[in-house]
Parts: sequence; structure tokens; C-alpha cells
Amino acid sequence: MSATLRVDLGDRSYNIHIGSGLLGQASLFEKHVRGRTAAIVTNETVAPLYAARLETTLAAAGSRVLRIVLPDGEAHKTWQTLDRVFEALLRAQADRRTVLVALGGGVVGDIAGLAAAVYQRGIAHLQVPTTLLAQVDSSVGGKTAINHPLGKNMIGAFHQPGLVVADLDTLATLPPREYSAGLAEVVKYGAIHDVAFLSWIEEHADAILRRDVATLEHAVRRSCEIKALIVARDERESGARALLNFGHTFGHAIESAAGYGTILHGEAVATGMALAARYSARTGRLGEADAARLIALLERLGLPVVPPRFPMEVWLEYMGRDKKNEGGRITLILLDALGAGAVVKDAAPRELESFLAQA
Amino acid sequence: MSATLRVDLGDRSYNIHIGSGLLGQASLFEKHVRGRTAAIVTNETVAPLYAARLETTLAAAGSRVLRIVLPDGEAHKTWQTLDRVFEALLRAQADRRTVLVALGGGVVGDIAGLAAAVYQRGIAHLQVPTTLLAQVDSSVGGKTAINHPLGKNMIGAFHQPGLVVADLDTLATLPPREYSAGLAEVVKYGAIHDVAFLSWIEEHADAILRRDVATLEHAVRRSCEIKALIVARDERESGARALLNFGHTFGHAIESAAGYGTILHGEAVATGMALAARYSARTGRLGEADAARLIALLERLGLPVVPPRFPMEVWLEYMGRDKKNEGGRITLILLDALGAGAVVKDAAPRELESFLAQA
Repeated sequence: MSATLRVDLGDRSYNIHIGSGLLGQASLFEKHVRGRTAAIVTNETVAPLYAARLETTLAAAGSRVLRIVLPDGEAHKTWQTLDRVFEALLRAQADRRTVLVALGGGVVGDIAGLAAAVYQRGIAHLQVPTTLLAQVDSSVGGKTAINHPLGKNMIGAFHQPGLVVADLDTLATLPPREYSAGLAEVVKYGAIHDVAFLSWIEEHADAILRRDVATLEHAVRRSCEIKALIVARDERESGARALLNFGHTFGHAIESAAGYGTILHGEAVATGMALAARYSARTGRLGEADAARLIALLERLGLPVVPPRFPMEVWLEYMGRDKKNEGGRITLILLDALGAGAVVKDAAPRELESFLAQA
Repeated sequence: MSATLRVDLGDRSYNIHIGSGLLGQASLFEKHVRGRTAAIVTNETVAPLYAARLETTLAAAGSRVLRIVLPDGEAHKTWQTLDRVFEALLRAQADRRTVLVALGGGVVGDIAGLAAAVYQRGIAHLQVPTTLLAQVDSSVGGKTAINHPLGKNMIGAFHQPGLVVADLDTLATLPPREYSAGLAEVVKYGAIHDVAFLSWIEEHADAILRRDVATLEHAVRRSCEIKALIVARDERESGARALLNFGHTFGHAIESAAGYGTILHGEAVATGMALAARYSARTGRLGEADAARLIALLERLGLPVVPPRFPMEVWLEYMGRDKKNEGGRITLILLDALGAGAVVKDAAPRELESFLAQA
């Protein structure tokens, strides 16, 4: 049971494979690694679970395999961790034909992707996401980044992978909180693009929560389809791609203000989506009942929908640093309806402040 | 008196302007900076000489101007210095429409270019080179990088500028050693591509050494023409662009082994070219008289042609780390004739060792 999607980006196009047992399929990897060094970039949590299996597969696919193990967690999405990848590659005299293979969640994928974007001015990389969040979101689309002490994801590159392999079996070992955090992004695709998918999630919430593999395959596939569609329209986020940031402007502020790592990214995005839905309703874009429906679904999936309390200056400072902003104006992604996101370029500052004061 | 060249790279094409008094011409910059933040990235040496003039010009062209002043020298081509640029941009809440303007030599250009490549996943940048080396080489072609403790230029990106403005007046303040170092790259273009240009340099060596502006305009223009031609054929260095590294494999080893900053890049390249010419003669590619002619020209221009003494392990270790290498083999750029460089993919290790032992 597996599905293959294509992300259509001209000479940077690539396949996404979704299914069971894919970590063991050497044929998926062969074209990309044969005769090269394949450096697996992973973390302390994922390495003992899956690194040996992937190493065997990559060796069977004809590559010399290195393993680079990083500390786990968003708090380590820093230059210091990125530099550990560079140092390991340089010590192994890894040349420009080396392929990095990101094995892990969003942090590993972001760091390995950025390392590939700038090591010797750019080498290839593959994404093997092992968290739900990474499978439905961060492994697809070529966005890579590290955090800066002054802002999240501020240093990065657009660097498309050569291949994405989402092995659904790896989701079985995910802690419940991280699993729910991934579901936030699944809900996002329904909210911004496909109300029928949103209804499907509501109907299958029980099967989703017990991680039924057939149900998961549909959830991951439909999420990746929507993401691939939006990315193909706007690879470098000059327009439509900003829709994918629904919940993220509020969410990034929550993550940054709380300190990276205390709140999971998906949790912050869930709270951000709840805020964006309420703000959409408050400003007359979205019906109150639709906002309540979205918030109820997030809660059912185990996600937080009420932000921690921050002073207004903190909200505005962190929202002001969001990369989508231009010329000092705050850009928000709001909903015109469930399934219809909208990029709002010049959110009215006073209305936003009074909303946040009560949030 | 000025000339305009076009670097032809499809939707990444851009102009190079070469001449006197260009730092004061707002019209050159207007299209790129009007209505945006223009952040001048420069260093402690160049800032007092030219930053105020460029600020006035950029303000006249309609931009909000920031100034970011870095320490001077190759020893500072590091992550720490790059991070100073990020920090200044983030503190100023610089958005994705911000344009970085590199004002200085190769180090400033490389750092500003890489900062632009990865700040918020990529913003625009302009190059305003103020050294001969930067005007004829590093400002053109989109290569950006910082050094890593384990190797030179190991972290970087291909990121083309939107414009290059080479004001020849800035060369008047260049210390003699740096000026000569730039001449090494001018000689390189003749050696790899155009023996007539090499003869022209020999004939005009006196005028070049006294920095006659009309002579310099030709030297810079012809150098940029040759570089633009080679870069347009092979933007990402998969083939012909490697020719531009003539003298650089030996040169990088010399720079790294001596410690960044003790030997200027152009000086190391000059010595590297002398070695490559001698090795080309030794292996029967090039006549001994031609090798001697090239070496004599380098010496006449005040450049070193004999390497410092290093143990063989040091040579091989640093040459082994060169980015052009693939699968452990050393790639060298040699000469089949003056004006005819050749990429030699699999330099015979024993022959090379015995040559270096006597170098």
C-alpha cells in the first residue's frame, strides 16, 4: 500500500512516496545515492529507532553511508547544530556529489536542507520524515531554515529535495503530543483549501487518533497534494504560498515569546489558527459557527486553542518580525470561509491590538 | 568614461558598470533601491573612505539607508561576522524587500552576498567593489561564501547580484600589495582564455602599475568580459567555470596552510598559477618558455611565485579538500598553451607529489 505524488517545479521536480515499509526499499533511493556518499542527518531520538535500517537500505542502494547525529529539539535549530553537520562532512572529506538524507522531524529536515543548500555552495538532499508534521508539511516544498536569537526561521534557503520518502510506520513511535501537533497542519490544509477534506477529518477523527494506517495514508496524501499544488504555483512565496502560513503569524509569535521548545510548533500553529479564525469572524469574513467548528476540531484532536498571556508589546514585536511582512505592515492569513484562505496584506493595527488584548 | 557589460543568465541577468565617478550616480541604483531599505555592508577600512558618498547616492535614489560595518580582513570571513549582518538587519526589522549593497573588497562581497542568499531565505543584493580583485573577479558571477575552520569558502551559495558598479576611482586608495594581488586575477584571464590580453598586460605593465585610469578601464572591462562569458556558459560550476580556478587549488592550499590572512588571496593565486604553469610544463602540456613568460609577468607585477615550505601531508590534506574534487581525486586547472586553460579531472597523485616535493 503506497502512493506516489509529483511536486511539479520544472527541473527541480521530485517525487513524494507515502506508505508502509518504505524505509527498507533500496530501489526508491538507488537513483539518488548509487556511487555517492550518503550522509544521514538525524537526531538522538530517531537514530536508535530507524538509522540502522536506513543505513542498510542506502548501502544496498550502492552508497557509502555516514551518520551525523544531532541533539533533539527546536531549541537546537541553531547555527551551532548546523555547524556540526558541516564539521562532520568536512572531516569525512565529503565532496560536492555527497547527498544528505534527513531522517527525522521538521528540525532535522530544516537543518539538513539548509546544510545541503550551503555546503560547498549546494549539494543534493533527500527527505525521510519520521514525524507527522514533517510528513505533511516541512519535508515538502524546499523551505529550509535555522532560528536566530532574534527570530524564528530567519536564516534559510529555498532548496528542493531530490525525493521525499514518508514511511507511515515511523508514526507509530511518535509521542502523543507530537502526533497531535502534526495533525494541526493536516487541519490547516482543509481550512485554507478544501472544506471536504476538513469534513473527512471530522468524520475520521477517531481512526486518525488511533493512528490507523489506511486512514493516515489518506490524510498524509491529501495534505501533501494540497501543499504540492500550492508550492508549484508559487515556489518562492511571492503570493499564494503565503496561504500555507495560516495560523503561523500568531503561532510564530507564541513560539518565540514562550521561548523555542516549550510549545511545539504544531501546537502554536493550532492556537494561531484558532486566533486567526476568531479574528476572521470578528472582522466579518467568516461566520461565527464556522470559526467555532474549526476550533472544536482542533480541540478534539488534542490541540491547544487559547494562547498564553503575553503583554501587547510582546505580541506586536514578534508579529512585526514575521517574514511575510513588508514595509512595517503586518500580513495575516485569514479565512473567507472554511476551505478558503485569504492573504490579508495590511491588517488594521488598532483592530488587531484590541482583538489581542482580549485573546 | 564608462562601460556597461551584461552578464547573461536568463532571469538572473545583470549589468556591470565600469568607470570613474560611478559611486555618485544615483540613476545607476534607482531601479534597485527606490522605496526599499538599502543596507550598505562595508568594513572599517572602506567605510571612512566611501560609505558617506554611497549613502548620499542611495538616499538620492529613494531608499532608506542602513550602514553595517564589519571588521576588515580574510580572517573575519567567518560565521561570526556573517551573524553581525543578520543581527543588524533583524534589529532594524529589515524585511524581504531589503537590498544589501556590498561596498568593499572580496571579503565584504562574499559575506554580503551570502547574507543576502540566506536572510529570510533570500533577498536582493548589489555589488560595489572597491578593490581590483573584487572588480575583476569576486563581485561578478554570484559565488558567495564564508570560510570554515576546516576549509576555505566551504559554506556558501550561488546568488547573483542585481547589479555590479565598479568605480575605478576607488582603486587609487588601495595599498600596493592589495593592488598587485588584484592583478593576479587579471593575468589569470589572459592565461586561461586570451593570449592577446596577456600580451596587452605585458605591454602596458608600467601604466597598470601606476594605476592609469584609462588603462585600468580596459583591464577591468576585458577581465569582466571573460569572466561573464565563462560564467554564462556554466553558472554553477559543473564544467567550464572550473577554468576560473586556475591557480586556486594550489593557492587555496597555500592560503589555508599559512593561516587565513597572512598571505593575500591574490598573492596565493599568483603563486598557485606559477606552480600550475610549472606543473603544466613538467607534464608536457605547456612549453617551458611559456611557463617562464607567465611567471616573469607575475613577478613584474610584484607578485610572489615561490610557495612557502609545507610538509607534503599539509599540501595533500588541503588540496584534497578543494571543492572541485570528486571521489577523492584531485582536479587541477592546467594550461595547454598560454590562453588555453584545461580542466584536468584526475591529476596523477605520484607525479603531483614528486613535483610538490621540489616546489
